Amino acid sequence: MLKRYLPILTWLPHYHRRLLGADLLAGLIVTVMVIPQSLAYALLAGLPAVVGLYASILPQLLYTVMGTSQTLAVGPVAIIALMTGAALSSVAEPGSAMYLDAALILSLLSGMILVVMGALRMGFFSNFLSHPVISGFLTASGILIAVSQLGSLLGISSSGFTLVERLMTLTPNLAGINPYTLMIGVGTLAFLIGMRRFGKNLLTGVGLPGGLVDLITKAGPVFAVVATTLMTWHWQLADQGVAVVGDIPSGLPALSFPWGDSSLWRALLVPALLISLVGFVESVSMGQMLAAKRRQRISPNQELIGLGAANLAAGVTSGMPVTGGLSRTVINFDAGAQTPAAGAFAALGIALITLSFTGWLYYLPIATLAATITVSILTLVDIPMLRQTWRYSRSDFAAMAVTIVLTLVEGIEAGLIGGVTLSIALFLYRTSRPHSALVGRVPDTEHFRNIERHDVQAPTNAALLRIDESLYFANARYLEDTVYNLVASRPELEHVVLICSAVNLIDASALESLDAINARLKDSNVKLHLSEVKGPVMDRLKNSDFLDALTGRVFLSTYAAWREFS
Amino acid sequence: MLKRYLPILTWLPHYHRRLLGADLLAGLIVTVMVIPQSLAYALLAGLPAVVGLYASILPQLLYTVMGTSQTLAVGPVAIIALMTGAALSSVAEPGSAMYLDAALILSLLSGMILVVMGALRMGFFSNFLSHPVISGFLTASGILIAVSQLGSLLGISSSGFTLVERLMTLTPNLAGINPYTLMIGVGTLAFLIGMRRFGKNLLTGVGLPGGLVDLITKAGPVFAVVATTLMTWHWQLADQGVAVVGDIPSGLPALSFPWGDSSLWRALLVPALLISLVGFVESVSMGQMLAAKRRQRISPNQELIGLGAANLAAGVTSGMPVTGGLSRTVINFDAGAQTPAAGAFAALGIALITLSFTGWLYYLPIATLAATITVSILTLVDIPMLRQTWRYSRSDFAAMAVTIVLTLVEGIEAGLIGGVTLSIALFLYRTSRPHSALVGRVPDTEHFRNIERHDVQAPTNAALLRIDESLYFANARYLEDTVYNLVASRPELEHVVLICSAVNLIDASALESLDAINARLKDSNVKLHLSEVKGPVMDRLKNSDFLDALTGRVFLSTYAAWREFS
Repeated sequence: MLKRYLPILTWLPHYHRRLLGADLLAGLIVTVMVIPQSLAYALLAGLPAVVGLYASILPQLLYTVMGTSQTLAVGPVAIIALMTGAALSSVAEPGSAMYLDAALILSLLSGMILVVMGALRMGFFSNFLSHPVISGFLTASGILIAVSQLGSLLGISSSGFTLVERLMTLTPNLAGINPYTLMIGVGTLAFLIGMRRFGKNLLTGVGLPGGLVDLITKAGPVFAVVATTLMTWHWQLADQGVAVVGDIPSGLPALSFPWGDSSLWRALLVPALLISLVGFVESVSMGQMLAAKRRQRISPNQELIGLGAANLAAGVTSGMPVTGGLSRTVINFDAGAQTPAAGAFAALGIALITLSFTGWLYYLPIATLAATITVSILTLVDIPMLRQTWRYSRSDFAAMAVTIVLTLVEGIEAGLIGGVTLSIALFLYRTSRPHSALVGRVPDTEHFRNIERHDVQAPTNAALLRIDESLYFANARYLEDTVYNLVASRPELEHVVLICSAVNLIDASALESLDAINARLKDSNVKLHLSEVKGPVMDRLKNSDFLDALTGRVFLSTYAAWREFS
Repeated sequence: MLKRYLPILTWLPHYHRRLLGADLLAGLIVTVMVIPQSLAYALLAGLPAVVGLYASILPQLLYTVMGTSQTLAVGPVAIIALMTGAALSSVAEPGSAMYLDAALILSLLSGMILVVMGALRMGFFSNFLSHPVISGFLTASGILIAVSQLGSLLGISSSGFTLVERLMTLTPNLAGINPYTLMIGVGTLAFLIGMRRFGKNLLTGVGLPGGLVDLITKAGPVFAVVATTLMTWHWQLADQGVAVVGDIPSGLPALSFPWGDSSLWRALLVPALLISLVGFVESVSMGQMLAAKRRQRISPNQELIGLGAANLAAGVTSGMPVTGGLSRTVINFDAGAQTPAAGAFAALGIALITLSFTGWLYYLPIATLAATITVSILTLVDIPMLRQTWRYSRSDFAAMAVTIVLTLVEGIEAGLIGGVTLSIALFLYRTSRPHSALVGRVPDTEHFRNIERHDVQAPTNAALLRIDESLYFANARYLEDTVYNLVASRPELEHVVLICSAVNLIDASALESLDAINARLKDSNVKLHLSEVKGPVMDRLKNSDFLDALTGRVFLSTYAAWREFS
């Protein structure tokens, strides 16, 4: 029991020196790599840069104790930062004390939601975010984030959380582009993209060993941060209008509880719910993928509790909503992390930086951070997926397209809610008009197939009707119509056999309809039979009066029914 | 084409004298019978009594032209009147001019919604009102209506649209019970209930012929109306505090268009939607049942248009929302109506009364009308259905119970919306955790059944897994877990066959999961096969890369797979 809620107890007792070496190295690498992105994501959410560092310390430590993934790294991530910014700016003025408070309340709410969902074992809830909706949402968010960074790359300001707002606030300022900022921003961007695209080949070409090549290409953002910081310091570019990170208070965050007023809590409830769900989905799919690579398993319900604890920790240590991040986790995994201890070492590393070395970040240009975000976020934009989904299923494509368009035009919440609602509605619509097929026997077998697709033997006085859907309220009347039309079009029929191999449920409404069909066929001297009724469905039917009233029989197999009528 | 939108063209050309006789008689009977209930339902909605008459004239005439049922009678009905009252009193003070205007706007909105739904062929929408939700809603509404009439029966006032509000406003006035009203109300109630329960036996006992007995028992309310009106007039009971219908302006309603302001239209949109749906469901199920009795058919989409036209007509002739009524339709059917002309004759009859004879209704006591409503509404309360549903399905029962409780406690809108939402949520939850079964061959057949329920032959190195649900986003991950757990628990497995006889859909999310399962089983040297994939599902899969990547085969039948591995 204790082990279930504190997974650290499963691995810490077996911890030994070899693991320690690997984890310490991974922790060191992660510390260096995630500092730029932590600062950048805090800025993306409209918060002071240091908040990103605070949110990478205690939350990660708590996840180490309570999480089930061996390699997940927890902290601020791009999508969640974007959602946080959108939520906060709808309730407070960016830069105000209330805005900071709201960030903490959002973290606490999100933490509570996750913990409650975990305690109630409601991890399955995240399944309602379908793959096309998530994929569409990531693509649209990637575009939104890239556009939001455009201003920082050019040295001008923009605001808003939809595509139109961003572009509208950006355009009038275009005349004020700062040439130094532009050079730093575009230069970094070009360097990072070049590194991604050609770095590996280039470095392998000059004869470096594979491991080092990997490390160098991954460390691109660190080089860019160091180089542009030094340049800005050396030429005093801040005086020329280049925006820099500036003063960061040194020292660890104080513990505090953001009371706020109740209206603020209420206003942030829906955003917190969406942030929790999206964060959980991102984190858990990442965690599952990496666990599968090492033949480990994670527990989604305990993950909810671990991520919830991390967010509660962020809420009381001046942080912002966090989750298991894509890029920071991949860095951790590739750096060879063996246990969650690696995450704890990284957290301690960042704590050390925050305590003593924030001064080193003074001259770090915002444009460099913007370029870092832009490059890492563009991997989310997945245009081929659009074509692939279109080819496979028009309704999945519709859900994806609506998510993208709504996210870009109406904002993040509208996009997610719209996408989920549409995918549920499309599923219900599809099940409300079920496919059904008249089937016949494939010669010399006991197998039955659609008479329109296969060359099969069908009896003349009996119709074998396979219903391809569970029978429930949304399609009960449709079933009635199907049977009545069948009987009306074939007056020679004496028997109708409903093949229930695909009927996984008959609810009370459908039972009423079956009763009605049975009675109406009886009036027309046609007998109603069932075949291949599944165990759980049959158990139910026995609790009703339907089987007593049924004019025909219940056949174990369709073959038995076919033999009877042929 | 014209015939589709104006069904009158299908029957009017063949109209002849024999039909005329039957329809005229039915029209006459309906006129006499529905006047009391039309007045009563208008009062139930908080409107002047005469509105009920207005709403029975032009709406019925338009339905005659555009409806597809031969016997449906259109006008104010109890449930819709209750819903109308609740909607109106949330936007205006009962008795105010705005309240009257709002009733007309509600009719127009409801008419527009119905017509649009009909034009878009969205009749299937009503299927989402499941049988348990409708049944629970009718039961709760019946109780609410009965309680709302209590005040009128006792001669005291009450208000509100939930059970608690009604009882709270009624109790303090109990001291003011009017003895004459009480006698009239309770006397009528006793007479009507007695007539229903014992009338038939009693009258048959004294030797009257069956047809006459039927007519007399059905005409109970008419007797009560005539007798209590005469009594009230003769003893001048209105002076003793007995509430009567009073002055009704004579003459037909003027044509008018209620403009109102836009906020009123917006506020009434959701109530109008619910009224449209409930009215449509009541009307269409009634129509279908009676059409089936005479081997006729109705067209649900054209019914939407017919009922929509009727409501538009009510909106411009000082009426209230209408639909095909249970009791008035039964009266019409039993009186021998042959074509919609009977409805038109009844409408003309009521128009005649409205023109010249409203004075006769002056002394009609409100308590008599209340007793009439109470008796007819109590047939809606269906307690045995509760037990029956509990026995058949706990989740259907949950939807029913929540609908009843919410309707009584929170009001009509909350009850309906809550019930529908819960039934959809329960369906989704159920499909998100699909039943699956390992199956084996029933000896000497090609039929496969659950190894835990039947004595079957199963191969040792292969698992035949039957998935009892369509695969879609909500259960895609659950499928992965099921397969991984299966493989983990049986290390000797070399083949997993997914039997897809119950899989009616594989959406893009589930396709991703199948891809993941295939890849992961491949890593464990287990081959993945499919069997009994349905035509439409297979067509889809061929549009993806899944079949190329699949490590195993696609078997036409499970038997073919079984032979391969045994």
